[in-house]
Amino acid sequence: MLPRGRSRALAAAALLLGLLLLAGLFLGRDLQPPGGGEVQAAADLVSPPQLLHVAIVCAGLNSSREVVTLVKSMLFYRKNPLHLHLVTDAVAQSILETLFRTWMVPALGVSFYDADQLKPHISWIPNKHYSGLYGLMKLVLPGVLPPGLAQVIVLDTDVTLASDIAELWALFAYFSGVILLWLDRLRQVGWEQMWQLTARRELLTQPATSLADQDIFNAVIKEHPGLVQPLPCVWNVQLSDHTLAERCYLEAADLKVIHWNSPKKLRVKIKHAEFFRNLYLTFLGYDGNLLRRELFGCPSQSPAGAEQLQQSLAQLDEEDACFEFRQQQLTVHRVHITFLPHEPPPPRPHDVTLVAQLSMDRLQMLEALCRHWLGPMSLALYLTDAEAQQFLRFVEASPVLSARQDVAYHVVYREGPLYPVNQLRNVALAQALTPYVFLSDIDFLPAYSLYDYLRASIEQLGLGGLRKAALVVPAFETPRYRFSFPKSKAELLALLDAGALYTFRYHEWPQGHAATDYARWREAQAPYRVQWAADYEPYVVVPRDCPHYDPRFVGFGWNKVAHIVELDAQDYELLVLPEAFTIHLPHAPSLDISRFRSSPDYRACLQALKEEFHQDLSRRYGAAALKYLTALQQRPRNSA
Amino acid sequence: MLPRGRSRALAAAALLLGLLLLAGLFLGRDLQPPGGGEVQAAADLVSPPQLLHVAIVCAGLNSSREVVTLVKSMLFYRKNPLHLHLVTDAVAQSILETLFRTWMVPALGVSFYDADQLKPHISWIPNKHYSGLYGLMKLVLPGVLPPGLAQVIVLDTDVTLASDIAELWALFAYFSGVILLWLDRLRQVGWEQMWQLTARRELLTQPATSLADQDIFNAVIKEHPGLVQPLPCVWNVQLSDHTLAERCYLEAADLKVIHWNSPKKLRVKIKHAEFFRNLYLTFLGYDGNLLRRELFGCPSQSPAGAEQLQQSLAQLDEEDACFEFRQQQLTVHRVHITFLPHEPPPPRPHDVTLVAQLSMDRLQMLEALCRHWLGPMSLALYLTDAEAQQFLRFVEASPVLSARQDVAYHVVYREGPLYPVNQLRNVALAQALTPYVFLSDIDFLPAYSLYDYLRASIEQLGLGGLRKAALVVPAFETPRYRFSFPKSKAELLALLDAGALYTFRYHEWPQGHAATDYARWREAQAPYRVQWAADYEPYVVVPRDCPHYDPRFVGFGWNKVAHIVELDAQDYELLVLPEAFTIHLPHAPSLDISRFRSSPDYRACLQALKEEFHQDLSRRYGAAALKYLTALQQRPRNSA
Repeated sequence: MLPRGRSRALAAAALLLGLLLLAGLFLGRDLQPPGGGEVQAAADLVSPPQLLHVAIVCAGLNSSREVVTLVKSMLFYRKNPLHLHLVTDAVAQSILETLFRTWMVPALGVSFYDADQLKPHISWIPNKHYSGLYGLMKLVLPGVLPPGLAQVIVLDTDVTLASDIAELWALFAYFSGVILLWLDRLRQVGWEQMWQLTARRELLTQPATSLADQDIFNAVIKEHPGLVQPLPCVWNVQLSDHTLAERCYLEAADLKVIHWNSPKKLRVKIKHAEFFRNLYLTFLGYDGNLLRRELFGCPSQSPAGAEQLQQSLAQLDEEDACFEFRQQQLTVHRVHITFLPHEPPPPRPHDVTLVAQLSMDRLQMLEALCRHWLGPMSLALYLTDAEAQQFLRFVEASPVLSARQDVAYHVVYREGPLYPVNQLRNVALAQALTPYVFLSDIDFLPAYSLYDYLRASIEQLGLGGLRKAALVVPAFETPRYRFSFPKSKAELLALLDAGALYTFRYHEWPQGHAATDYARWREAQAPYRVQWAADYEPYVVVPRDCPHYDPRFVGFGWNKVAHIVELDAQDYELLVLPEAFTIHLPHAPSLDISRFRSSPDYRACLQALKEEFHQDLSRRYGAAALKYLTALQQRPRNSA
Repeated sequence: MLPRGRSRALAAAALLLGLLLLAGLFLGRDLQPPGGGEVQAAADLVSPPQLLHVAIVCAGLNSSREVVTLVKSMLFYRKNPLHLHLVTDAVAQSILETLFRTWMVPALGVSFYDADQLKPHISWIPNKHYSGLYGLMKLVLPGVLPPGLAQVIVLDTDVTLASDIAELWALFAYFSGVILLWLDRLRQVGWEQMWQLTARRELLTQPATSLADQDIFNAVIKEHPGLVQPLPCVWNVQLSDHTLAERCYLEAADLKVIHWNSPKKLRVKIKHAEFFRNLYLTFLGYDGNLLRRELFGCPSQSPAGAEQLQQSLAQLDEEDACFEFRQQQLTVHRVHITFLPHEPPPPRPHDVTLVAQLSMDRLQMLEALCRHWLGPMSLALYLTDAEAQQFLRFVEASPVLSARQDVAYHVVYREGPLYPVNQLRNVALAQALTPYVFLSDIDFLPAYSLYDYLRASIEQLGLGGLRKAALVVPAFETPRYRFSFPKSKAELLALLDAGALYTFRYHEWPQGHAATDYARWREAQAPYRVQWAADYEPYVVVPRDCPHYDPRFVGFGWNKVAHIVELDAQDYELLVLPEAFTIHLPHAPSLDISRFRSSPDYRACLQALKEEFHQDLSRRYGAAALKYLTALQQRPRNSA
């Protein structure tokens, strides 16, 4: 579909500002947009089987969040297979690699190009603005992208598509009756030499700070006007305070691309701002899982693992009472690691990261947690796309949270009816960057001194060496929701004696923590070893390379128990720390719990999963694993 | 944009099944789709200024929920002003009138047609299926719609648009080189007589149950084949298990309309089901507020009140510390009353509805509330569109909640940063259908006997007559989250003496309930009168026509206090009931509270709002209102 009857719109072309159509750089200007007959031909050229290429320069944490909205808007309207060429720094690459791998969008290829390697090609241009260096990378794209790649659309990250990008691709056809390989042509005319010569000449007269990629493009074009073909204005509706864009969009029924190129971004004050804002917000909050749809009419390569996943899902028996559990376990959740600004902790040999997971209903725990734990944290958040934006605003509005650069938030996007607790824990665990991790839960507040005390204990116990140990942090609970947190073990013991505190789940599930031996802990002056026991699920500090959590346990029940079994099977010593403690705060039961706890099916499935877990244990650890099965069978009731 | 090169697709026409293009019924079949030149003309005919008409038959509660998703998909893609002609029963009309009034979508007109009045025209057709009667109403549309209306698109409620409906409208042009007024033509050929004759004839041979509107349409067409023009198949992609639709959509790059005409709806098992499901889910969870956008290039009539609202918003001072409060107060929230199946309570002279409001984080209170309060409830829920779907699944999964047909849920869609507590209360209050209401909060559980006791008290106190009274239900709180609810006043007093219960907010805000006089209540055997006091905010039972809550109090603070002041100013007696009680359960502070309570600006604004409230009081009640201001000024601290 090509724009019709918009010659005036065409005349008001927005030239290579922001939305940059490299195809616009070609040889000769004697070609005109085709008439009606050729429109059909152009549309055929971009019919679904054709692969379209898009290049984006994306560096840093915030850009990698921004680019997601652009990609969503592109995927929403697209009907063609796409290949993204992403020029990224290390931070953006690690985030986006995880995201696209877990997003599993069919008919979407992604290649990464190391921006750091490109720096030498452009760093000779004096440039005081950090992001400017990345902006300049657009200049070297023809040399960086694969030699076989003929055409590419280059987009800024602050762009929102409002129509199928194939319509933009179709504009390549305007340049000629035959397909020209534009990148090739640029290479042929010696683009690299050309822009460098121009840039060096410009540098003689222009101050360095204002010299960004656009200045160079403009200068090259000024010298070689034949290189450029204006782009219809609907393909770059720029939203700045004094934009002339209204002239364009009032005449055009179809807007194609919106470009947030005012520093005010969404707060820009222009007529019709609401229209543009709403389109942007549409994709900001859009459920990215819905974009995992197959395209019609073009047999496309499936994302890595997608076929195997489809087969596994297809083999599940819908009549199986545990169908939902097994489905949830197989679900690949889209993951956006380091969703918010984060400074990795400096390498320290005994440092500990607090690891936990949460959903929206526990957000109010974060400030208190930040006050109690002064070290690094790695938190997995189970959110919808819209909730991720609410979360972003929540953190920005909190001085306590925004001050903490050592807390990494990893968004795992919701999918399925059960809370994938162990998958979330594994995401947070995998992203912890210190040698040790404290495996906690979000509704616990640790002793104020715990962070310092753990590091000292790790050093004293010589855990840095070969000793394989899990340090147990004794857990307590308060039934009161207004509560004065004990400042020391002595204060805690006084509260315990006064009945204002209990050992954790003392009334409902004492076996979960009995093996910690609270009586001994009262008196203990030094760490002491305890033995594994059935259903034991203490909160522990372990090396980062500890076994992962078993993802088959979704929803609630047995998710930590199975992990402690694994630690024991792998011969971790369990050492209780005499001064460590953590306290569970009361809260309303989460929806996930209340929905499933009462169900008999739920208990039956949990039982089935436990049995499968034990079978796997025997397979991996042989006869040594027998004690876990025996312990399970000796228990009268299997609840957790 | 018209489909191109799809002659085969055109041939595989889906004829008048489900998606019904009335325009397809016209005189003569000698007209052909125009060639390339006329495509442009057709597109011009539907350029934005042109108003498009859509008719939908929508009866009952579930259909009125379903139609919202259809309307969202239509609004998302449309560029033209639209007018909806809705044939509704009383239930759907009341829901949809409120929804469209509060949705305030520019360039969208809505007319309602009373389905009950149309019944006589079709009820002579024997029809055992309830919804079938409404289906048959499509037959009489040409006679029901305004005589001046020439063309209309008729859609089923289970349809999702996948493109601009103007493209469908443009198909009118295919029928001729000139614009035909199809409805007019149908009227001229005597459509009404025609279908009735055919139907009567068919009735002689067909069993009644299978005779729906489509059977009649098919029979008429069989007799008068010249009446029909096939519709390109992309305009009615039918999704049933054995659909032939794949033939159509694999050839067409653009799907226009998806029709969920399998009884399995979203669970239908066909190839590519995921693609269709995702499009549907897109609009199911789509934030309808984003569709309140102005159209370009067509100066359209604003929705009722929209201009005044825009002016009021424009007059707000962004630098005012209370800007967010005032903006939130002015916000018109989209409201979907009776979101879930509901049976209005039978009229009973002393019946009481429990009125409360909540957001997602209090959903887990609903089951307990249903166990404690066995009477009707009217609850306002503050949700996003996506949360409304989660809520729907939550209720469906709960046997306790799905069994209760006397609980009406009214969805108020989220917009803005502050919780519009009093607007929510007013929505729930306005929808209460009994003569009395118990104005409660969601985190309170009433005594098990309260519903019966209140009705008996109302009868005994003779409130049905002229007596203007507010019955006070004394409020308590428990600091414990595991708690055995007292079965009687005696049990409650024992818990109070044991320190397991307190009077509500005894520690933080005693003046809120002190005037209830708990000491007297302990001993009371009969209702007793108490006097208003500063900051008094008891939970009360009042006639349904009581004053509304003041919507200026958003977020937290003073929202109930102001309402009690109003009751006192209007001379309501405050009568404390000796056997009534309600108990507040502990919960984590809501995000809304924690976000604003700590802010000094928040307190300053609350103070400003209180002062404005008192000025308004003086204006309305004169010198009598002076006592409230004096009471306010005599208090040292103004917190709430």
